[in-house]
This record gives sequence, C-alpha cells and structure tokens, in this order.
Amino acid sequence: MNRDESTQFEPRRRSDGAQSHRAILEEATRLATVEGIEGLSLARLADAVGMSKSGLFAHFKSKEELQLATVEAASALFAVQVTEPASQAASALERLRSLVDRYLEYLEVETFPGGCFFASALAEMDTQPGPVRDRLVAFLGDWLGQIETAVRNAQAENGIDPEEDAAQLTFEIEAALLLANAQYIVMRTQEPIERARRAISRRLASAAPRRRPRSEPARPRGK
Amino acid sequence: MNRDESTQFEPRRRSDGAQSHRAILEEATRLATVEGIEGLSLARLADAVGMSKSGLFAHFKSKEELQLATVEAASALFAVQVTEPASQAASALERLRSLVDRYLEYLEVETFPGGCFFASALAEMDTQPGPVRDRLVAFLGDWLGQIETAVRNAQAENGIDPEEDAAQLTFEIEAALLLANAQYIVMRTQEPIERARRAISRRLASAAPRRRPRSEPARPRGK
Repeated sequence: MNRDESTQFEPRRRSDGAQSHRAILEEATRLATVEGIEGLSLARLADAVGMSKSGLFAHFKSKEELQLATVEAASALFAVQVTEPASQAASALERLRSLVDRYLEYLEVETFPGGCFFASALAEMDTQPGPVRDRLVAFLGDWLGQIETAVRNAQAENGIDPEEDAAQLTFEIEAALLLANAQYIVMRTQEPIERARRAISRRLASAAPRRRPRSEPARPRGK
Repeated sequence: MNRDESTQFEPRRRSDGAQSHRAILEEATRLATVEGIEGLSLARLADAVGMSKSGLFAHFKSKEELQLATVEAASALFAVQVTEPASQAASALERLRSLVDRYLEYLEVETFPGGCFFASALAEMDTQPGPVRDRLVAFLGDWLGQIETAVRNAQAENGIDPEEDAAQLTFEIEAALLLANAQYIVMRTQEPIERARRAISRRLASAAPRRRPRSEPARPRGK
C-alpha cells in the first residue's frame, strides 16, 4: 500500500481537498458499521459530515462509488493496523500469531464503532450480488489467504506440524476471530477476545510439530 | 413450544386467517435474511406477499411489531429443526453432538435463503438498540445456554473431561458454527459445513475424559 494513500485516523498534513476527502471516508467507514453499508447513501453521509449533498457529489458520483471507496478506505486502515505490522515478524509462526493478535487488538481498540468493518459489511451484502459484494469477498479471500500462507510457511519452517491440514487450521483460527467480533459488539467486554486468544493459542499448541529436531530448542507453548 | 403455533413450512389445516398469517410470517423470515430485518417494512412485505399495505396492517400494527413476530416465527422454526430433535438424545454428549449436527443441517437445507436467520439479523441489529435487538440477543443467549448446559451435563455424565472450561468449549463450538454459516452463504459449497463438523468433532475428541472409569467401555471417537 502507498503510505500517502493511507486512511489512518491520525492528523497529517494534506491539502484541504485531500483532508476533506479522507475525513469523509473516515466518517463513511464508521457509519457503515453502525447503519450498514447499504444505508450509506450520499444524503445520509452528507448529513453526517455536515456537507451538502451536492458538495459530496463532487467527491463521489454515485452511492456505489461511495461504497467502493469506503471499502478501500477500510482495507487501507486494516492493512495499517493488522497485516503490515504482522509482516515484520521474524518467523512464519510469529507472523501467524501477530495476525491473530493484531486482529484482536483492532477489535479491542474499537477501530470502528460496529466492530470489524468487513464482517459487518459482508454479513449485510452476502446476498446482494454486485461490485461491493465482490470487493468484500475478495478482501476476505485475501485475509484468509494471508493466514493460510503463514500456516503453510510455518509448516515449512517446522513451527507447525506438516501433517496439519492448513486450510482446516485457517478455518478454525478465523472461526474464533469471527465469533470474538460478533460477541464483542454485543457484550462490549474482554471475555470473547480472551476466549478467542485462548482457543487459538491452544489450537496452535496442539498443531506443534510432533517430531521436533533435537538440535532445535523447544519453544514454550501457549505464549 | 405449542405445536399449533409452529411455523414449520409445511401445509397444515388451519383457518384461512391463520394460514394467511403464517404465510406472511414465512415470507417475512425469508425476506429478512436477504434484504435485512430493517428492510422488512410493511410496504416491502405487502409487495412480496401480494397484499395491500392496509391488508397487512390488519395483521401487524407497526414495523417493529412485524419484526418481533418475524423473530418469533424464526425461533419456532429453529426449535423444530434444531433444538427439539436434539432434546431426544439419550446422553448429554449425544445431545451436544445433535445440536451441532442439526444446526449444520439447518444451514445445509437452506432453511432461509440468506443463511442462519439469527446470525443475519443480529449482525444487522447489533448496533441498533431496541426490542428487536434485545429479542435477538436473548435468543442467542438461550442458544449458547443450551450448548453450555449440554457440555456441563456431559461433564457430569463423564462424556467430557470435568476439567474442561465449559464456557470456553461452548465458545469454540459456536465459533465453528458461525463461520460455517458465514462462509456457506458466500461459497454455497459443503466445504465450510464439513470444516465445522471436523473442527468440532476433533475438539470433542480432545475434551474426552482423560481418566475413564475402567468399568465403562470407551466410546469410539470422532463419531
């Protein structure tokens, strides 16, 4: 991702036009997790950001264009908060743990008021064919692909048992993350976040290589 | 549940008024999983069932009343398809397995076109305070309570290790079911259903009592 196009929610020197465009999209991502991405009309967003509908029309020519730009803004933010930091990890297993930890942090800090933007938007759009659904499905495929790649690389690096079914393990990790999000939105307590952390930590411990080379020191489990 | 109030989608002799009321709610549950429970206006539903809005108004005085009646209709159907059959099981562990199997079947047979009614409706309403959200949260609490009760009873019956954290195990089972639903809606293949089945079967095998009384024959795992 080009850092200049990032939509991190922090002050940054930009031209007034760009600042305004970013501020509009920031509000759009938040609004979409509360009122739904289908509720994200130009009229509703104009009201939320205090602009005229015609002023907003200068930024986005249609509701669909606005929705797609909102998904891109949320994707850029997700990359900054979750996937980019994880890419710095020293090993594939550490990268996998980092993807999990960063995702749970992204929930905990309430990046969006209605929980994970993508879980929220896809639950809404899954039965609505079109470019917005396609983009969300592609995002989800990319996210699951990153987890599965980390699992496969960890198998190659002897951090995970090569006999584990990587796609199955990916499913089980994502399952805990998805339920953490769903329950966190309803409960607003740490409990589901901790339960997901525990479930995944335990699952990765059970997926540790059974025959570890004697030359390599064993890592403590459940770290 | 009173069977006469059941909303099973099968023909049954009823008065025309009751038939009509049931047919309206049947359509409402289906529509809610595709267009959203917030999209369930009297006007939209009247259009879907081929009635006038004023004709529908004789059945439901407000959108909220319609939404609540739709949640009740979906709850009754869920009881018939999932929880009532499971209650027939001979042991708590069998009841737990039956709740899982019946839930996955409820997804597989596409009871609702947009997947699990409750997952869909709660994902939409989780940030919308009010009686509809409250009813959905109560339903979810009841569902998780049934799973957790089956786990605790299975622990008492020595089907599950008493040292397992019942709430944690419940979280892990529900996580697999929730992701099966989310992925099934997008993929429409058996894969996520099978992955959930495998994840839960494996997890229950790992939760089997460690010290089984010698007098009791071991049950085959992964059944």
